[in-house]
Amino acid sequence: MSDFLIDEFEDIEPYNPGEQPTDREYLKLNANESSFPPSPKVLEAIDKAQINKMNHYSDPYCMELRKAIGQHFGVGAEQVFVGNGADEVLSFCLMAFFRPGMKICFPDITYDFYRIYAKAYRLDYEQIPLNEDFTLDIEPYIMSDRDVIIANPNNPTGLALPVSEIERLVASRSDRMVIIDEAYVDFGNESVLPLVKKYSNLVVVYTFSKSRNMPGARIGFAISSEAIIRDMNNIKFAFNPFNLSSLAIAGGCAAVGDEEYFRFCVDSVIRERAYVEDKLRRMGYEVIPTTTNFVFFKATGIPAGRLCEKLKDQGILVRHYNDEKIKDYIRMTIGTHAEMCRVLNEMEKIEKGFASDVENA
Amino acid sequence: MSDFLIDEFEDIEPYNPGEQPTDREYLKLNANESSFPPSPKVLEAIDKAQINKMNHYSDPYCMELRKAIGQHFGVGAEQVFVGNGADEVLSFCLMAFFRPGMKICFPDITYDFYRIYAKAYRLDYEQIPLNEDFTLDIEPYIMSDRDVIIANPNNPTGLALPVSEIERLVASRSDRMVIIDEAYVDFGNESVLPLVKKYSNLVVVYTFSKSRNMPGARIGFAISSEAIIRDMNNIKFAFNPFNLSSLAIAGGCAAVGDEEYFRFCVDSVIRERAYVEDKLRRMGYEVIPTTTNFVFFKATGIPAGRLCEKLKDQGILVRHYNDEKIKDYIRMTIGTHAEMCRVLNEMEKIEKGFASDVENA
Repeated sequence: MSDFLIDEFEDIEPYNPGEQPTDREYLKLNANESSFPPSPKVLEAIDKAQINKMNHYSDPYCMELRKAIGQHFGVGAEQVFVGNGADEVLSFCLMAFFRPGMKICFPDITYDFYRIYAKAYRLDYEQIPLNEDFTLDIEPYIMSDRDVIIANPNNPTGLALPVSEIERLVASRSDRMVIIDEAYVDFGNESVLPLVKKYSNLVVVYTFSKSRNMPGARIGFAISSEAIIRDMNNIKFAFNPFNLSSLAIAGGCAAVGDEEYFRFCVDSVIRERAYVEDKLRRMGYEVIPTTTNFVFFKATGIPAGRLCEKLKDQGILVRHYNDEKIKDYIRMTIGTHAEMCRVLNEMEKIEKGFASDVENA
Repeated sequence: MSDFLIDEFEDIEPYNPGEQPTDREYLKLNANESSFPPSPKVLEAIDKAQINKMNHYSDPYCMELRKAIGQHFGVGAEQVFVGNGADEVLSFCLMAFFRPGMKICFPDITYDFYRIYAKAYRLDYEQIPLNEDFTLDIEPYIMSDRDVIIANPNNPTGLALPVSEIERLVASRSDRMVIIDEAYVDFGNESVLPLVKKYSNLVVVYTFSKSRNMPGARIGFAISSEAIIRDMNNIKFAFNPFNLSSLAIAGGCAAVGDEEYFRFCVDSVIRERAYVEDKLRRMGYEVIPTTTNFVFFKATGIPAGRLCEKLKDQGILVRHYNDEKIKDYIRMTIGTHAEMCRVLNEMEKIEKGFASDVENA
C-alpha cells in the first residue's frame, strides 16, 4: 500500500477472477466461457480496414451499437447503455444512483461482484439468504426498503425466478431501484425486459460474454428507462467517455446481428447441458436444475475441493467455492460434447480411485 | 434526469469530446488523431486466431502488455498500470488517491478532463493561470500545498516544461502526489520517466492514442512506484477487473514492440509540423512553438470562430475554444503533407475572401 491510498480503500477487496494457472494448457470449465468462437460475422467485421481505422477515436456515444442492440430488443437507442463489460455497466449504475451508506440487498449466494462493489462504493448492503435448496424467496426483498440486485438466473446456482415474481418486486415500490442481471438469461429463460416499458425503476443488465461468446471483447449493456440511461451516460461522459474501442463496437454490432449463429450456439449448450445433467445424476451427483451454460452439483463421494484439485491434476479447471453453504458443490461450464465426455470420464476415474482408497484404508 | 440520480451528480458536467458531425466526410484535424494507421504489427497481432479466442476472458492482470511496456521503458511490470484509455487510468488514479474535498490543482488552460474529473470526484480544485504567453510558471505549484496534475506538453497550447522544472515540483514535498500526463511527450520532448526511480510521489500517465496511432483501441497506462501501481490495480480489481479486451492487449503489445514504425510516424509528424509552423507564420499567424502533434495559433485576420466555421464549410474540422483566454486561437492537428496543403490553401482563400469582404464593407 502506498502512502497515498485513501483510508476508505485500505481494506478494499479485489474481485477474485478465479484461478488462471499458466503452467500448462487447461480445459477451462471454471469461468462459464463459451466453447464456441464469436460469430463468423464478428471475424468479418473486425477486418483489416476496421483495425487500420483505429487511428481515429471510437464513437463515445456508441450509437451504432446502441441502435443495433435497441433494434434487437425492440427499444430505442436512448434506452440502451453500453459498457466495457457488464461489470463496468454495473459499476456506473452504482456510481450514478448510490452514495456511500445507501441501502441495497442481494442474495448471500450470488455473483460475488455485487458484494465487492457494495463494499468498494461503501454501501449499506444486506445479503439475504437463499432457501436451503438455493431457491430465492422474493418476499424478504419485497418487504425490505432496500434497492435490489438479483442475478436471474442466479450464479453459481443456476436457478431462475419467473418474471412474475420479479414483477411483484419491481411493482412493490416505484422508488426502489431493481437491477436484474440477465447474464445467463438466454440459455432457456424468460427475460424481464418487457417490464422496462411498464416500470421506470427497473434496470436490466446484459453481457456479450456468455450467449454471444465474447468475454474477451468486454461488451456489456443495460436497458432501462430513457431517464436512467441518460443519467448513466452522463456519468460515463464524466468518468470515461470513450469506454468502448472501435473494434468492440464493430464486433458487438456484428454479433447482435447474427441471430442464426446465436441460436445455434445456445441450442447446442442446452442440448449438451441435458446430457451432462442426466449423466451426472446417473453418476450419483445431486444436480441443481439449471437454465444456464453451467451446471451446479453436489459432490457425494469425494469432497468437492478434492475433486476440483484432482481434475486440475488432469488438466481440467472447474469452480469450487470455500463459502460454507456451497463448499460441497462444484460449478462446471457446459463445453462441447467431447469436452464434457472428457471431464465426466475423469470424474468417474477419480471417484473410483477415491472409493477404492476408502475401502483399502 | 431520473428520480434515482444522486444529488451530487445533479449538475454533473459530461466531457465534451469535440464535434463529430456525420453529415458528410470531414478531414478531422480537431482531435489530435494520427494520420497514420496503427503499426502493421498490430494488424498481424489482431488476426483471425486472436479474434476467435475472444470466447475466453482477457487477462485481468494484463501481464503480457504490462511486461511489454515495462521492458520498453526500462521498468518492471509491477510499475505499470494499464487502463481502457488514459482517461480511465486518470479516473482510477483519482479514485484511489483522492476523496471528495481533497485539494488538487492544474493549469486554467489545459486538457479539460482534469476539471471534469475534479468536479465529478468532488475535489477541491484550483486552476492556476498560465502566464500571458501560455507558458507555465512552476513556482505557484511548488508553493501550493495541493497535489498537482500537469499535462506536459500542455494541451491545447503545445508548450512543454523542462524535466528539471518538474523535478523541482516533485522534490518540493514528498507527500504531494504529482501526476504528469505525457500524452504528447513523444513528439520531441524529454520524458520525466527517469524521475520515477528517484521519487515515490510521481505518477506518469501515457496513452497509445497519440504517438502509437491507436485512439480507437483505448489503451493508456501509468508508470509509478510499485506501491502506487499496486493500489491502482487493487482499485481496478474492485471496480472493473477485466478492463482491457484481449484485442487491445494483443494490439498494444504489438504496437509497443514496433519501435521502427513508431519512429517513422513521429519523425514524419515532426517534419510536417516544421513546414506547417513556418507556413502559418508566413501567412501572418502568431504560432505558439509546439512540440506535439498539433499546432496552436492565433487568428489575425478573420476571427478564430469564423475561420473554424468556414473551414467546416469546406469539410475540414479544427478545434476552437470559447474560453475567453484562448478564444482567438485555433488548435489544429498535424496531418499528412497533402492534408496540410489542403487546409493551408483553404485558409488562404478564406482570409482573402474575408479581407475583400472587409474592404467592400
